[in-house]
Amino acid sequence: MKALVIVSGGIDSITLAYMMKDAGYDLMLLSYDYGQRHKKELLYARLAAERLNAEHHVIDISGIQPLLKGSALTDDIEVPNGHYAAPSMKITIVPNRNAIMLSIAFGIASAHQADIVGMAIHAGDHFIYPDCRPEFTEAFQNMTDRALDGCHIPKLHTPFLSLKKQDIVAIGSRLGVLYQDTWSCYKGQEKHCGKCGTCVERKEAFMLSAIPDPTIYEE
Amino acid sequence: MKALVIVSGGIDSITLAYMMKDAGYDLMLLSYDYGQRHKKELLYARLAAERLNAEHHVIDISGIQPLLKGSALTDDIEVPNGHYAAPSMKITIVPNRNAIMLSIAFGIASAHQADIVGMAIHAGDHFIYPDCRPEFTEAFQNMTDRALDGCHIPKLHTPFLSLKKQDIVAIGSRLGVLYQDTWSCYKGQEKHCGKCGTCVERKEAFMLSAIPDPTIYEE
Repeated sequence: MKALVIVSGGIDSITLAYMMKDAGYDLMLLSYDYGQRHKKELLYARLAAERLNAEHHVIDISGIQPLLKGSALTDDIEVPNGHYAAPSMKITIVPNRNAIMLSIAFGIASAHQADIVGMAIHAGDHFIYPDCRPEFTEAFQNMTDRALDGCHIPKLHTPFLSLKKQDIVAIGSRLGVLYQDTWSCYKGQEKHCGKCGTCVERKEAFMLSAIPDPTIYEE
Repeated sequence: MKALVIVSGGIDSITLAYMMKDAGYDLMLLSYDYGQRHKKELLYARLAAERLNAEHHVIDISGIQPLLKGSALTDDIEVPNGHYAAPSMKITIVPNRNAIMLSIAFGIASAHQADIVGMAIHAGDHFIYPDCRPEFTEAFQNMTDRALDGCHIPKLHTPFLSLKKQDIVAIGSRLGVLYQDTWSCYKGQEKHCGKCGTCVERKEAFMLSAIPDPTIYEE
């Protein structure tokens, strides 16, 4: 059994990689350089791959970035502070990001005869990001079944789709994920800033799951 | 009205670009460097953009190529000669290519408020390529409507979907497309080889449409 897992280097995707390893899959980890402001998270993806003895590839799609105007994750717009699910976070939408990442992942997974493509989208993303909702994942599989008709067709695996981030942290904690070696902060400084949307969400996940937060925050 | 058209530099996509210009759209042309064996076709895409007074962007996704093993279009496998629709041409399948190119195009088109994304897939491609069939284009639009929910959602426009290549040549001829400035050959030498699948298909299209073929072939 082979699984291709898309990993950013954050809590969710690294937990998913550990979960698939634990389920007995041969792992292939795939990260994207999409022109994000900082590459720090990619170092943590690499570290997880080493720990899990998995192949790791970083796909450079940064050439798309100048044409995807309007997102604070890739542009020179200031990243807003505050809660991740606040309306102001809509500025962090990269249009069609998950469709782009999944389409590439499925092409590679098909060529490598992987059984599943894992993506760690979760319920906390639904409000802001349309391409993190169940309607999207169903429609994506349906599209892929047609695009790859006659070729090897992997299944999209999104086990966190109806879970919250605190549930993911609880799962990962049982699997022995070292969360000090994951990265969430949008700002990419030496330490997690503790104030941006993903830092707020990260802190909250540890607090709500009653698992000690090993993260060192700036503040 | 704004249209983003995906152009390879071949007969079909250049004809579609002319057609959209003729229909009154502001044009944005998008090409992909996906690690194809030669970049010759991209020069013809650029030339068409200049003639049509359109923005032209080439997106480098060649980092994906080493991971999409198994296609003669990107690997060091010999490109087969013979008819384009022959079973031997299955070797030229790049898994998920159209889903990858369209997902990126829709992200860009959404950010740029384009009304349509044009792709020149046609009936002659259906037999070999699953991602050129109507079932695929319908499923792709459906997926995109979910991925971009709440953002600007362009429509996929594939006016050649039920046409044959000879019909496309006939349309382009009426629109004044200069077919000597398009490129089909998989092999990318100085002249069209005249023997590979796309050269055979090109010759046939001019013959069946009874339009003089301006192409200079090697043989």
